[in-house]
Amino acid sequence: MIKAGILGATGYAGQELVRILYHHPEVEIKVLSSNKHNSQVYNSIYGNFDKICELKCEENELETIAKQLDVIFLSLPHGVTSKLLSDSILKNVKIIDLSADFRLKSEEVYEVWYKIKHNNKNLLNQAVYGLSEWKRKQIKESRLVANPGCYPTCALLCLLPLIKEGILEDDSIIIDAKSGVSGAGRSLNLTTHFSECNESIKAYSVNSHRHTPEIEQQLSELYGNEISVTFTPHLIPMNRGILCTCYGNLKNSFSYDEIEQFYEKYYQNEFFIRLTKKGVFPETKWIKGSNYCDIGFTLNKSANKIIIIGAIDNLVKGAAGQAVQNMNLMFNLGENMGLKSIPMFPV
Amino acid sequence: MIKAGILGATGYAGQELVRILYHHPEVEIKVLSSNKHNSQVYNSIYGNFDKICELKCEENELETIAKQLDVIFLSLPHGVTSKLLSDSILKNVKIIDLSADFRLKSEEVYEVWYKIKHNNKNLLNQAVYGLSEWKRKQIKESRLVANPGCYPTCALLCLLPLIKEGILEDDSIIIDAKSGVSGAGRSLNLTTHFSECNESIKAYSVNSHRHTPEIEQQLSELYGNEISVTFTPHLIPMNRGILCTCYGNLKNSFSYDEIEQFYEKYYQNEFFIRLTKKGVFPETKWIKGSNYCDIGFTLNKSANKIIIIGAIDNLVKGAAGQAVQNMNLMFNLGENMGLKSIPMFPV
Amino acid sequence: MIKAGILGATGYAGQELVRILYHHPEVEIKVLSSNKHNSQVYNSIYGNFDKICELKCEENELETIAKQLDVIFLSLPHGVTSKLLSDSILKNVKIIDLSADFRLKSEEVYEVWYKIKHNNKNLLNQAVYGLSEWKRKQIKESRLVANPGCYPTCALLCLLPLIKEGILEDDSIIIDAKSGVSGAGRSLNLTTHFSECNESIKAYSVNSHRHTPEIEQQLSELYGNEISVTFTPHLIPMNRGILCTCYGNLKNSFSYDEIEQFYEKYYQNEFFIRLTKKGVFPETKWIKGSNYCDIGFTLNKSANKIIIIGAIDNLVKGAAGQAVQNMNLMFNLGENMGLKSIPMFPV
Amino acid sequence: MIKAGILGATGYAGQELVRILYHHPEVEIKVLSSNKHNSQVYNSIYGNFDKICELKCEENELETIAKQLDVIFLSLPHGVTSKLLSDSILKNVKIIDLSADFRLKSEEVYEVWYKIKHNNKNLLNQAVYGLSEWKRKQIKESRLVANPGCYPTCALLCLLPLIKEGILEDDSIIIDAKSGVSGAGRSLNLTTHFSECNESIKAYSVNSHRHTPEIEQQLSELYGNEISVTFTPHLIPMNRGILCTCYGNLKNSFSYDEIEQFYEKYYQNEFFIRLTKKGVFPETKWIKGSNYCDIGFTLNKSANKIIIIGAIDNLVKGAAGQAVQNMNLMFNLGENMGLKSIPMFPV
Repeated sequence: MIKAGILGATGYAGQELVRILYHHPEVEIKVLSSNKHNSQVYNSIYGNFDKICELKCEENELETIAKQLDVIFLSLPHGVTSKLLSDSILKNVKIIDLSADFRLKSEEVYEVWYKIKHNNKNLLNQAVYGLSEWKRKQIKESRLVANPGCYPTCALLCLLPLIKEGILEDDSIIIDAKSGVSGAGRSLNLTTHFSECNESIKAYSVNSHRHTPEIEQQLSELYGNEISVTFTPHLIPMNRGILCTCYGNLKNSFSYDEIEQFYEKYYQNEFFIRLTKKGVFPETKWIKGSNYCDIGFTLNKSANKIIIIGAIDNLVKGAAGQAVQNMNLMFNLGENMGLKSIPMFPV
Repeated sequence: MIKAGILGATGYAGQELVRILYHHPEVEIKVLSSNKHNSQVYNSIYGNFDKICELKCEENELETIAKQLDVIFLSLPHGVTSKLLSDSILKNVKIIDLSADFRLKSEEVYEVWYKIKHNNKNLLNQAVYGLSEWKRKQIKESRLVANPGCYPTCALLCLLPLIKEGILEDDSIIIDAKSGVSGAGRSLNLTTHFSECNESIKAYSVNSHRHTPEIEQQLSELYGNEISVTFTPHLIPMNRGILCTCYGNLKNSFSYDEIEQFYEKYYQNEFFIRLTKKGVFPETKWIKGSNYCDIGFTLNKSANKIIIIGAIDNLVKGAAGQAVQNMNLMFNLGENMGLKSIPMFPV
Repeated sequence: MIKAGILGATGYAGQELVRILYHHPEVEIKVLSSNKHNSQVYNSIYGNFDKICELKCEENELETIAKQLDVIFLSLPHGVTSKLLSDSILKNVKIIDLSADFRLKSEEVYEVWYKIKHNNKNLLNQAVYGLSEWKRKQIKESRLVANPGCYPTCALLCLLPLIKEGILEDDSIIIDAKSGVSGAGRSLNLTTHFSECNESIKAYSVNSHRHTPEIEQQLSELYGNEISVTFTPHLIPMNRGILCTCYGNLKNSFSYDEIEQFYEKYYQNEFFIRLTKKGVFPETKWIKGSNYCDIGFTLNKSANKIIIIGAIDNLVKGAAGQAVQNMNLMFNLGENMGLKSIPMFPV
Repeated sequence: MIKAGILGATGYAGQELVRILYHHPEVEIKVLSSNKHNSQVYNSIYGNFDKICELKCEENELETIAKQLDVIFLSLPHGVTSKLLSDSILKNVKIIDLSADFRLKSEEVYEVWYKIKHNNKNLLNQAVYGLSEWKRKQIKESRLVANPGCYPTCALLCLLPLIKEGILEDDSIIIDAKSGVSGAGRSLNLTTHFSECNESIKAYSVNSHRHTPEIEQQLSELYGNEISVTFTPHLIPMNRGILCTCYGNLKNSFSYDEIEQFYEKYYQNEFFIRLTKKGVFPETKWIKGSNYCDIGFTLNKSANKIIIIGAIDNLVKGAAGQAVQNMNLMFNLGENMGLKSIPMFPV
């Protein structure tokens, strides 16, 4: 059995990790830790775990538990992970980091967008960006995986096949993204107060969201040239789910079938990617509670544009689920082990 | 492997049955049927099953499939099941009926409340009321289980220990129940139109809901005397979940600890019943997607009343989950087999 | 024109006061004040007032503005008002207090339930409990009105006619109340975090809510004898609205029509009270944004119980609207002036 | 007093018309009609009107009531209005049509998109497209106003200033729109069933929504050249509100201030248009229940794109409110008469 620890276990992504790992046939959760809820029994914070998980949140030195565990999931605020990690820790344990600290290759870009000094530039090179479907080989060999952000996971899975095929005009890409409120985490602030976000919709961080450079980095890397995107996230009054409506100008004219073949070329054997049928588009209700990413598209011939729509559960494929998928890769397990649950509906 | 069929597979309870049975280690779904969606591929109706379940809804003679299957779940409108069933069918297959047709022992009461002639009075005696925790022995030996209604499941699990102990005053029981909208099913009507029920609360079928005689029958049977309850269901703008706030007058004065011991006497070894700690009360968010029933209570000394609160997922413990629990009992499997999923939060 | 000030103008009740008073034909808002948002332009906090209200939140001595204004609405946390008020202030200005500080006649009861020392016992006698329909005469002559709590407003309007007629058994009254989230105010806490309360229902402050003594005081005063109630509030995932489902044992047998006559006796000329037709029950969607209180009832003959259901908008009839209704009374204006807006649907 | 009639008074837009006109100081509602609810008292269908409006829905010949009324609002399904109207009716009464029948100048385009034969081509020329802020002069002189669709109202108000200034690249315009569920009307269908749309988001009619030609016609007319747009509407789990996130490529480089001046040029004196401050973007919660349209924008310099965000209440500015605004223009009343209500929050 793989001995696992979760630091930051009482955030929403952390809790989802506990839920998924608890049923994983090859994992035993050994350590839960939480700054806010130190010494508390886990199920007193999350009542869903009552009579199921009797573990307590405990303070732990990362150095110490690194020697006792096989894998540690870090679900901590940005800027913390990069302070905690070191080469010696990585020698003892595999790390899957759900923060942004190791996602961007350039510490300058990181510091501009996150307004934090990066504390661990030398580990940046070791970190592999954990977009499972596109980095499978590197993830398998890595000891430090930077788990992708929720929006980038959805947007990149929609766009990368077309980028790889080189059929989109530079700088034409627009990502109009919509997220449920759990994406904003469990911390208290007015934006996520029920009466302030229920029954309303707004755009936020327009043109300035921190996931922008993450998306651009991955697109540019695959394209071999700098790509700039226009990214507008919106807050939707629902608990879970992300829908990305992506737009791009086509360099040439393509038929629906031709584009469909591009998607099938990259995704037909992917367990977690479901291409919708022609005329059918993803809805977040069909993927909730699962690690699936649904993708559909159509063409606007008169403007020579493609519209691609993707849907994921922000806490599963956009966080905890993909983290476990990456763990499966890192430990040579079946990639979908512990991740086969059918989306729950209606929830 | 148990060969299972589901008739009425495209209602919400039917869909939840498919979801649960699909992962059940000892079950293979052989037949799905739906009047509304005959000949359609199941995942074209419920997109969550895309790439998971490729079965088609097919029309079937119950007589015929009874010979091919081990168990059939009937998730059909009231009045249909009692027409379809017969002794000869029951000789060939075990039946779990999610409709109300075999829940009430008296056909007169059935006809008064459901305004339908009962078509199968002779089978009424064979049917066992499938409240798993209280009818375990009879369910194990039965070939026809009448799966309880959602409200009765929650209310009865809250009240039966106190009825059994005989500590509540006759006719003092009030059940103020609150249900999410999925309890009203998938059929179209103005009550469940989004703009009509979202952001509002109402009582409905006040004093006249069909689950009233079902609750009264079970309470009275255990009490050994006729009990009359006051039952007020409310519609809550959420997808899933039932909360029952039950009130009763105590015949004598009891301490919190004494009442707690009554609950523990009946429930301490029950896998699916979770008694909350003193001062903590059930919330539907902690049980969604699971077969748990959470129960908590407190005392109002100045009015000598007890307030008991219970929470279940109406589609799981209130329908499909308890049906599978009953199937497990009927086939001598572990009672919680296929039902161990942790409640999902937030959904 | 009546010169009005609102202290605590940036809470939800305060904001609703601003909205209602802004359109009141006889009122001019002169002062807005807010501890949290001192010196900020009001419409930068509440964007709905953009291009409408250009006032700024200012810090003010109550003594000073008392001399400049005709009426001051205090929408401040419990315990603050009783410190601020004095006889000399009341000589200069009429006060409508939306906090609980002057609602309870007994300072001992206040201190037990609010765990705060009462700072102004001598003013308690001057304060009139502002349940407009039942205290009209006293309100007209008062300079200090204690505006009722949201739950008490709804529960009392449902129960007082029956109490006045003396037809309910002592201590049989149960109030099962359901409230939208805005009732919890704008302060940040986990209970009102979107992901924590959306799509869930819970009871809270079971048997211990501070509105209990307020309800009991008013019932007892009218009944002429101590009445004890069982009060269970629930949190509902919607922005606005309260539904109270009240239960009581009838001392004698009454017909529907007899009870209806009791209600008509007290309410047939009340502008803001709407009795629903037989078989129709209030829904919060029909009263949102208005000062109406809808009331309906039915009888459970077999248990000799009455079930009364009432619905109000917690921020209007349960707070700001009733406060303005009281102001109208205190200034001899038409009681419904500025309060005639039709409930908005769907919202 | 203006004598008004509303045909189709029991749809959501019709109901909103009744609510607004009921309080309009210069209007008296004389006729309500509804196919579905003929002969029913209006407040038995919409409980918010209990004790307020005692009118009955009645069947009426349009010819007949045209002679008795000053204005008729038609809130009927597409294809019906064009059959009903005639020159002789228009001689007797002014018509404001909320259907799409007279919005498109070309009957061919109408027939392609609505798949209905147009029955009244000769009246198409008389009809004025009722986008109040941009067609004020023509509306004043018209007897037949085609009230704009909800999406076009919001999108056009965002885009027309930039189109008028000629600063956007042809065919670069993308409108990613999000609407609450009331926009889909009160008819029953699975899409608006609570459990099917609550807690989920989907795009619909991607690239094929009927509002596309309406938007293109108005943009093209002002631009003097054919403009093709990419329009993607989404369904959001909330009752009211539309948010349009519009994207376009700038022909040249512009500063924020320059663009702001364009907007102020056209809108600074518009009562119902509120331009948000730099860095602030519209949210639907700030406009609900009002006739305002909030507009904000930002620039993505690296892709030379502008992002414009607009918000309206789909039932007010997107339907009934704008219809009344047009009526005010047609009858030479103050344009905002009866439309000054402050947005309600939180709802």
